[in-house]
Amino acid sequence: MKPSEGRRRVVIEAVTPSVNAGRYAAKRVVGDVVKVQCAAFADGHDHVSARVLYKPAKDKKWRSEPLRSLPNDLWEGEFTVDKMGSWVFTVEAWIDHFDTWVHDLDKRLGAQVDSPQDIPLALRIGANHLEAAAKRAKGKDAAKLKLTAEQLIALAESNLPFYENPIKPDVLALAAQYPDLAYATTFEPQLPLWVDRERARFSAWYELFPRSCSPIEGRHGTLKDVVERLPEIARMGFDIVYMPPIHPIGVQYRKGKNNSVTAEEGDVGSPWAVGGKEGGHTAILPELGTLDDFADLVSAAQMNGLEVALDIAFQCAPDHPWVKEHPDWFIIRPDGTIQYAENPPKKYQDIYPLNFESKDWKGLWDALYGVFKFWVDRGVKVFRVDNPHTKALPFWEWCIAEVLAKNPDVIFLAEAFTRPHVMYSLAKGGYTQGYTYFTWRNTKADLEAYFTEICNEPVRDFFRPNVWPNTPDILHEQLQTGSPAMFKLRATLAATLSANWGIYGPAYELCEGRPAKPSPGKTSSEEYLDSEKYQLRSWDRSNPISIAPYIRKLNEIRRAHESLQRNENLVFHTSPNEQIIAYSKRSATGDVILTIVNLDHQHEQSAWLDLNMEALGLPWSGAFTVEDLLTGTQYDWNNQWNFVALKPETAVAHVFRIRG
Amino acid sequence: MKPSEGRRRVVIEAVTPSVNAGRYAAKRVVGDVVKVQCAAFADGHDHVSARVLYKPAKDKKWRSEPLRSLPNDLWEGEFTVDKMGSWVFTVEAWIDHFDTWVHDLDKRLGAQVDSPQDIPLALRIGANHLEAAAKRAKGKDAAKLKLTAEQLIALAESNLPFYENPIKPDVLALAAQYPDLAYATTFEPQLPLWVDRERARFSAWYELFPRSCSPIEGRHGTLKDVVERLPEIARMGFDIVYMPPIHPIGVQYRKGKNNSVTAEEGDVGSPWAVGGKEGGHTAILPELGTLDDFADLVSAAQMNGLEVALDIAFQCAPDHPWVKEHPDWFIIRPDGTIQYAENPPKKYQDIYPLNFESKDWKGLWDALYGVFKFWVDRGVKVFRVDNPHTKALPFWEWCIAEVLAKNPDVIFLAEAFTRPHVMYSLAKGGYTQGYTYFTWRNTKADLEAYFTEICNEPVRDFFRPNVWPNTPDILHEQLQTGSPAMFKLRATLAATLSANWGIYGPAYELCEGRPAKPSPGKTSSEEYLDSEKYQLRSWDRSNPISIAPYIRKLNEIRRAHESLQRNENLVFHTSPNEQIIAYSKRSATGDVILTIVNLDHQHEQSAWLDLNMEALGLPWSGAFTVEDLLTGTQYDWNNQWNFVALKPETAVAHVFRIRG
Repeated sequence: MKPSEGRRRVVIEAVTPSVNAGRYAAKRVVGDVVKVQCAAFADGHDHVSARVLYKPAKDKKWRSEPLRSLPNDLWEGEFTVDKMGSWVFTVEAWIDHFDTWVHDLDKRLGAQVDSPQDIPLALRIGANHLEAAAKRAKGKDAAKLKLTAEQLIALAESNLPFYENPIKPDVLALAAQYPDLAYATTFEPQLPLWVDRERARFSAWYELFPRSCSPIEGRHGTLKDVVERLPEIARMGFDIVYMPPIHPIGVQYRKGKNNSVTAEEGDVGSPWAVGGKEGGHTAILPELGTLDDFADLVSAAQMNGLEVALDIAFQCAPDHPWVKEHPDWFIIRPDGTIQYAENPPKKYQDIYPLNFESKDWKGLWDALYGVFKFWVDRGVKVFRVDNPHTKALPFWEWCIAEVLAKNPDVIFLAEAFTRPHVMYSLAKGGYTQGYTYFTWRNTKADLEAYFTEICNEPVRDFFRPNVWPNTPDILHEQLQTGSPAMFKLRATLAATLSANWGIYGPAYELCEGRPAKPSPGKTSSEEYLDSEKYQLRSWDRSNPISIAPYIRKLNEIRRAHESLQRNENLVFHTSPNEQIIAYSKRSATGDVILTIVNLDHQHEQSAWLDLNMEALGLPWSGAFTVEDLLTGTQYDWNNQWNFVALKPETAVAHVFRIRG
Repeated sequence: MKPSEGRRRVVIEAVTPSVNAGRYAAKRVVGDVVKVQCAAFADGHDHVSARVLYKPAKDKKWRSEPLRSLPNDLWEGEFTVDKMGSWVFTVEAWIDHFDTWVHDLDKRLGAQVDSPQDIPLALRIGANHLEAAAKRAKGKDAAKLKLTAEQLIALAESNLPFYENPIKPDVLALAAQYPDLAYATTFEPQLPLWVDRERARFSAWYELFPRSCSPIEGRHGTLKDVVERLPEIARMGFDIVYMPPIHPIGVQYRKGKNNSVTAEEGDVGSPWAVGGKEGGHTAILPELGTLDDFADLVSAAQMNGLEVALDIAFQCAPDHPWVKEHPDWFIIRPDGTIQYAENPPKKYQDIYPLNFESKDWKGLWDALYGVFKFWVDRGVKVFRVDNPHTKALPFWEWCIAEVLAKNPDVIFLAEAFTRPHVMYSLAKGGYTQGYTYFTWRNTKADLEAYFTEICNEPVRDFFRPNVWPNTPDILHEQLQTGSPAMFKLRATLAATLSANWGIYGPAYELCEGRPAKPSPGKTSSEEYLDSEKYQLRSWDRSNPISIAPYIRKLNEIRRAHESLQRNENLVFHTSPNEQIIAYSKRSATGDVILTIVNLDHQHEQSAWLDLNMEALGLPWSGAFTVEDLLTGTQYDWNNQWNFVALKPETAVAHVFRIRG
């Protein structure tokens, strides 16, 4: 069957950014310049012109920016997204007969082989193009195009010889503003973008257990105690203070200290065993305080320049109200009991997973959405979601879209440590940020390979890494050394490789390294000894081992240097020493940070770096200055070959600001 | 908005083969095994199962084949396409609860840590799954599944301890045949395939000018003369005999010998200046014969195991009937004249291009389609299309689909030598085969890079190279040596690198190398001196310089060895000598051809090859025999390191058959 219009001669292909051919939105933040690329071409030798069309999804009117032609039928251009929410864009391209004509006339004049009547005829053809353009234009533009057309006719009629193209660049540019789009091709499908606020791209998170915030050892901490901690967290330079679930905790099958199967009298249980007689996901554990206390916390955080992030764990303790109200939201076993979580032969009888194959899946989805809505209505704009990879992926795509439709400023962090396809699918389905494999990427080769993957296309268009050196669940073997140098170097890597990072404190700044089971060994464990997941802890933050001042410095540097506030600009530099990793980030405005980390926390390591000068925005020779922002020390360097030596006792890293 | 069914937990991505995300069809031929790959995964730890669904596009009923699980959530499988035409396929995947249950039971039994009631409960759950499967099955299968369910219940009720999984592989496989597809996910969009006949993938073409086929020098050759030539062409092992346009030739602005601007009395003109008072694209030049003669030629070709290919050049001489009948199909200049072809400052006044932006584009499209239909109705199933890249791409997509809808056995070869995107777009739009850059790929590095690109994904899924060492338009500088060794080595490369190849003869086998202008130099030319494009030629095929016997040998080898009849199996081997190129092809049935070519036509070259034994289907050590199919000589080799020496006077190449 013929197309409705067969005269659309241009073909457009490979438009980017595009996630799964437009099935999912590429992610950007407000103010980002979106770089668009594509191939566009037609039969024959006629010139093609192209532009990007873009708009907020709800707008009726398209905006446009011209695309520039690159070799080999490729095109590029850019547009700026200036508000949050859903955007769409596509590419439109067409045969530009006037542009073709102007360049053909150049060739005719250059060769001067035409017969006498050819040039006047060519001028009349050009005049026709200009008259048509004048009809598409208005006002002064129309007049100028019409005048030029008349001049061409006059020139044609004069029969005078001429050697310069009568069409000057200003007329060419003016005509290009009024293209003949009658047979323009528009790329299908329209490609979606999701535009977040800036915090989605650049953030520093601090996780703490409210119940351990009491200044009095042994007393259950409260939300009011958390308020007291906020100034200190803000001083360390964090943006987001994130708390494990604050809901009532189940009593049945409650876990005891150090994850023992039976709790003792007074054991506080795991906050992730959500729900008790006091309520479920929209209630607050009475020991922590009230909804009013929570409102006070949200306000106090704002006053301190912080945001509160809640941990949403969609699973239920056997005491959760939903178990009685909606037993059909769980899996019922043949004996009528509800299926607890298990990964045979392991059982987690304190947890009932939700059944995403429930007949009442719609009711379940609405209830889960309702949890987010409840807290969003109470001022929470940041959620860390526990184990999202054990809940149905289509649910997340719907639920996150539903929340964002009304509140596009909400941020969702996926706490998924699972297979790459599932992690990436959560991101494609809407998660703003995602946890990463960083904790287990410890060698230079592994770090370079992993960050190259996640900071480049196609991954960077949908997956925003949030990099944590520790979590309450993961005390990596490297940190079990308890060595402050190791804690500093892993924090430096996290804070400078990734624009989003976080720590679980005060365990981190106090260099807590005691594992539940010694490592390495068959029974090695990444669990903390006396983990806060199962008991109250009291932290001596005045302990001189604290690396809080170092962390504060890292966050200060990140805030002062926009190059560290994004990831797509990451470039690794060559160092012959496997213990010395070097990388830089450079912003569009020329801010450049070169970070060099000694991965060996015990020994001095040195190397002659071979810098990629182009990536640093420097000429291949010529003096430049590097200033270590951690210490203030400056060095004068002259070319790409530079010697560095890092002694763990005094400096685990250089974070150099580069001045050409 | 919620999806209509939220319980489809599996996500399917990256299904291949896929051309532009399903916008175009991937190409295969009848009997091909189509290998399908994708990613399919779900939340949590439940097992996923997947299958490919496929069918001829017009069929209602889907066929299916199971996919096999690979690491990292990837899947693969295959199906066979058993008839020509449009096919579609997609992937369906679902949570396999029974498979999950069986493997969980393994783990339970292995650990034996469950409490006494857990195992009987697990057995009842398994029995439920089996009963549901029994309901989806019929007859004996249903009975067996039901019986197994009852056995599980009995085992549960017996309370006897057991240590082996009661589900044997046969029951697991049987249950897998009756999956619960209630919440299965189907990948969208359905992906199109186009299935050609085998000749689309494997063919040898012989181009000749009928008017030069007269046995009497100076007399205009005829279609009857071509009939006389067929046995010889068939003996050389070609499948397709292809003739430049056979239509009436324009008189106005006719080109003379050697492309001179004015023709002399008796000059025959260029066959590509289509159309005269005797008719246009559906007429035959009277000097060549009649439609009856043409019918005889088609029959005679069939008798000789050959097919006739016509050259369709959609452009008109000023004398073409369409110029008067449909002036609106051309571009009219302001003075009322029709625009001739030009690429300023060059003019081709003997040619009027068609205007694909004509108001009557529908009429034009119909007329062009009518040309193909006319010749298809007269038994032509192979078309070489001249300069398709100067006609609108959307036209080709429509026109080829229109022809193939009724005659799926038609083959279209695109004679496009232009930018890669345009060449590939013609292929995506339906061209069965395409000319290539082979002629200008002369060094080992260039040959390896180019054939690696076109023989691998994504290109190989839509673009089928047809490789020509010469054409009437292209006498490459290398061939201007006139050296038989050069003609042999280029033929060997073409015939063994690509499953589709062709030559323009008898110029090729007679090693015609005289250019229109000497090369190299500013005025160098790839045009032949005394080109048949503008005059009659008489060829002395008995000249002993003829390499016809060598070409016959090459084609014999190609027919006898199915590994040479496809391209996706091409593998290059390492040789330290830049003049020695080595590559192999291996078929699914184990036929292996290793070709080694000396790219230097003047000097002996030798090298120690480093063979990729795995690609040859051989163990890394152990004796094997290579037999040169060109000479019959055999060598016994023992490992990947092997010495070869090729002297151009005696042998330009080895075409080794490998026997392990």
